[in-house]
Amino acid sequence: MNLPAISHVPFGKDAYMIKEDTLVVVLKAAKGDLKKVSLFFGDRVDIHKEVQVNEVPMELTGSDELYDYFECVVKSQLTRICYYFQIEDFFGVNLFYSEYGFTEQMNRQRIEYFQYPYLRREDMIEMPEWTKDMVMYQIFPDSFASEKGGISGQSKRIKERIGADETDGLVEYRSNLGGNIKGIVENLDYIEDLGANCIYINPIFKANSYHKYDTVDYMDIDPCFGTIDDFKTLVKAAHKRGIKIILDGVFNHCGPDFFAFKDVLKKGKESKYVDWFYKLRFPIETKPYPNYEAFAYVASMPKLNTGNPEVLEYCCNVGRFWIRECGIDGWRMDVANEINHEFFREFKKAIRAENPDSFLIGEIWENSENWLLGDQFDSTMNYTFISVCKEFFAEESINVQQFDEKIQKMIHRYPYPVSLAQMNFLDTHDVGRFLSFCHGDERKLELALAFMMCAPGIPSIFYGDEKAMEGLEEWEYRRPMEWDRKTSVFDFYKKWTHIRKGSKALSRGNYRTEYIDNENRVYAFSRQYEDEKKTVIFNASEKQVCLNLGENVNCAPWSVAILE
Amino acid sequence: MNLPAISHVPFGKDAYMIKEDTLVVVLKAAKGDLKKVSLFFGDRVDIHKEVQVNEVPMELTGSDELYDYFECVVKSQLTRICYYFQIEDFFGVNLFYSEYGFTEQMNRQRIEYFQYPYLRREDMIEMPEWTKDMVMYQIFPDSFASEKGGISGQSKRIKERIGADETDGLVEYRSNLGGNIKGIVENLDYIEDLGANCIYINPIFKANSYHKYDTVDYMDIDPCFGTIDDFKTLVKAAHKRGIKIILDGVFNHCGPDFFAFKDVLKKGKESKYVDWFYKLRFPIETKPYPNYEAFAYVASMPKLNTGNPEVLEYCCNVGRFWIRECGIDGWRMDVANEINHEFFREFKKAIRAENPDSFLIGEIWENSENWLLGDQFDSTMNYTFISVCKEFFAEESINVQQFDEKIQKMIHRYPYPVSLAQMNFLDTHDVGRFLSFCHGDERKLELALAFMMCAPGIPSIFYGDEKAMEGLEEWEYRRPMEWDRKTSVFDFYKKWTHIRKGSKALSRGNYRTEYIDNENRVYAFSRQYEDEKKTVIFNASEKQVCLNLGENVNCAPWSVAILE
Repeated sequence: MNLPAISHVPFGKDAYMIKEDTLVVVLKAAKGDLKKVSLFFGDRVDIHKEVQVNEVPMELTGSDELYDYFECVVKSQLTRICYYFQIEDFFGVNLFYSEYGFTEQMNRQRIEYFQYPYLRREDMIEMPEWTKDMVMYQIFPDSFASEKGGISGQSKRIKERIGADETDGLVEYRSNLGGNIKGIVENLDYIEDLGANCIYINPIFKANSYHKYDTVDYMDIDPCFGTIDDFKTLVKAAHKRGIKIILDGVFNHCGPDFFAFKDVLKKGKESKYVDWFYKLRFPIETKPYPNYEAFAYVASMPKLNTGNPEVLEYCCNVGRFWIRECGIDGWRMDVANEINHEFFREFKKAIRAENPDSFLIGEIWENSENWLLGDQFDSTMNYTFISVCKEFFAEESINVQQFDEKIQKMIHRYPYPVSLAQMNFLDTHDVGRFLSFCHGDERKLELALAFMMCAPGIPSIFYGDEKAMEGLEEWEYRRPMEWDRKTSVFDFYKKWTHIRKGSKALSRGNYRTEYIDNENRVYAFSRQYEDEKKTVIFNASEKQVCLNLGENVNCAPWSVAILE
Repeated sequence: MNLPAISHVPFGKDAYMIKEDTLVVVLKAAKGDLKKVSLFFGDRVDIHKEVQVNEVPMELTGSDELYDYFECVVKSQLTRICYYFQIEDFFGVNLFYSEYGFTEQMNRQRIEYFQYPYLRREDMIEMPEWTKDMVMYQIFPDSFASEKGGISGQSKRIKERIGADETDGLVEYRSNLGGNIKGIVENLDYIEDLGANCIYINPIFKANSYHKYDTVDYMDIDPCFGTIDDFKTLVKAAHKRGIKIILDGVFNHCGPDFFAFKDVLKKGKESKYVDWFYKLRFPIETKPYPNYEAFAYVASMPKLNTGNPEVLEYCCNVGRFWIRECGIDGWRMDVANEINHEFFREFKKAIRAENPDSFLIGEIWENSENWLLGDQFDSTMNYTFISVCKEFFAEESINVQQFDEKIQKMIHRYPYPVSLAQMNFLDTHDVGRFLSFCHGDERKLELALAFMMCAPGIPSIFYGDEKAMEGLEEWEYRRPMEWDRKTSVFDFYKKWTHIRKGSKALSRGNYRTEYIDNENRVYAFSRQYEDEKKTVIFNASEKQVCLNLGENVNCAPWSVAILE
């Protein structure tokens, strides 16, 4: 047995509650090493000298390149659980595994078992119900629309004097392409028709640049995009259609015209806002690079000191304000991995207090398990998802088995309810369009899209993907929405959003690999939720393939089939 | 190479800050598998297309039964770090290891490296300075003293009418052995002479039973033990001697006479305190077992609903009150693993706001890494420590190598600053006296004590251990302090506390295994802090042993030697 490859860490992804009386327990072992794994659990505070234990068989739920994952569900009236594993390899070797270590006999005391000390409802990871069947549409507002089915393409420059005295200067708000909030309102029919039930909008608060990631005023809508009233109209009209609205919160840094930074620029060390920024040095220098902390080395994006209680309170007020005043349904937090963890705990409490159903997504490109234990984010942006899809569908640089292993690794890195809530996408405002990585091959795009719609995680469509838009450079993939383009891509986007929304198995079900054929690039997996089961079969090759999965299935080249 | 046994999880015990510009990075691998490990790190937001990386060799800091631990310290002006490892085995196989996985070439993009997104000062684990050289003395107040060098041995029954109206009954406070706060004050000379600089006192608030774990009033001292003024006198007198005071906070449950539970008993479902308790059922039943959640199944210890903001606020007020009113220096939290995590985050913030140097210890018997990331406890009670010491020194059931492996495993399970702050002990009010497990062999006790005083972690002495007190049952190990007993055990306790306090290497230094001799039961390790290095040699056998560690060392049977 490969003992050092076996691991189980109580709490977190290896032991988590899915209901007040239901615990999921996971054990990881080297791939192909263990034949059988059982869990034995009992009452940590059993009044008998010997704990009465129950055996629960563990299921192999998936394998990645290196590991097998064994899982079981423990449903019990016990609130305090102690447990250990019995593991058996293919040579008949039997061992017990507890916090004490690996032993041939399980004659240890209960305090040497693994412990789930108390099934506390407060420590349970719970997602708002509406997020469980979500299909998201991401809008980069400058690029999307200014009218029904159209965008003006006209840039704007709007100047405004801010601040109390004459030494305060003019602030200029800019946009490039003419998209605005009214444009989103007027195209809600389109979004609804496409099948989305949630819109995530990139920043819309007052900011200098067209992308609005350099906030001037967190409490107001950028005049290039409209007014607060426009935005209220949008939220109301969206809600009427059952469409939720998620805003982009940029709290890692602000723009140079944010009142606190302006005050610091004017008063230097004497400003009462010095501690609103992370590590200012005086005199402040901006060239060639800022002598203060900033987003990357961008002088116009000074880093906020989110560890300062005043800044925290200010940001939490912003979080509450847009929920209370306009009724938004959630926040996506920009550059979340560079902000202190405590900030998000407080921000989450603030918005949940305002709306218990609000949703919080973090922009974290890497493994984000430390942010996803329930106390901080509900979800993070899943850049691993596109990385794997790009390798398999677009580049064809990995085979079916490697694809499956990477997907299994991705799914098993978080508690499963968290994996179900990951924000999956094929591209965003920060990366090239997926279709460009496919060199324009729309069949590949459809397969990747179908996979996203059938995989665990919230599918998200970046505006224009459904119009077959392409682009690898920033200016390109943020180009104006091609409203007038007729394309069959739109039809298959619409088809797949509806398949997704019509199936709880696809949105909430488990994920099991069913079939791997490297030679023919055929892959099948199943999703099951309660009594509903779907088996999804991909043929990611130029060949016609016939396979038998209980029934015979004929797979056309580059096709997807779903069996009930 | 045993790839599935290699692991590194960014954040937590594998990557943590020790200064604002200094990161410790750890990689775990199967024991004996890797010959050489290097870290390559660079700027996550490097403005060049290719990240400039620096190589840092990693040191093998220790091995347990299954794993080798490699570690390096990264000191850099960079605030955002991306990194990967290069690993080499004994057959010359070379691989790179990044978040992407194991690869032969490191031609991945920087977003596929491991990330330490931002070295945030708020996420750094920091202990109050005074705790770094602490020697703790634990007092079970009923059993300790009622006068200078003595304890009355007289039980008490004090009755008090509490509550506003005549239907409220009498509450009885009981004690068994006569110990009180005055007794602690009058024996501060003794404690100081022994060499302790911190006293942790088991509960002293108003409670029914002699052990006071069934609190009636969190804001008052139990009349069997004295008054608030007595306690203020104690804190002042202790502080005058440089001795800190830590109190025991019992917030998992209360006693049956706590005002909120009395109100529930009286008014049933109509009580406004129903939600102060976790899962009450009406009518309330107490026999044979309570039909409500309680500590274990003890009806007189109903479980508080610490997830209720009112209860949280009440408890935080208690935490602040004793710091503000009496100047205590920290809290030990009872049954901490059954309380929701958020409770401790808030409690820690509350007491740190009142006194930035206050210390927070949790009673968690098992691996408590999820409580020790900086947001919750500074320290937990280290029951693993006695378990390992018992096996090696008392029972002699494991050999030197196994002892070393278990100690290395224990040290490496947390970030090292956390291991340095673990509360180590040979026994407490909840387990048998160590000397009894040694069957009275004081030589074994001295070796275990010497190990505790030379090992990473805060050494803690349970009252009476230094008087060679024994006992395996609760009534026995909580017996009255044997003030009149003359024993050489006291002398070696005094000797070792002074050795500990005289050496920063022993209190703050690293830990490296230097010598293992299973046959002769000889073990040596070194501790180094800045320029001070100590090598500690144990001979845990009946034999005289001579060994060469640069110089010849003669080890008498059951002896400890320290080389400078």
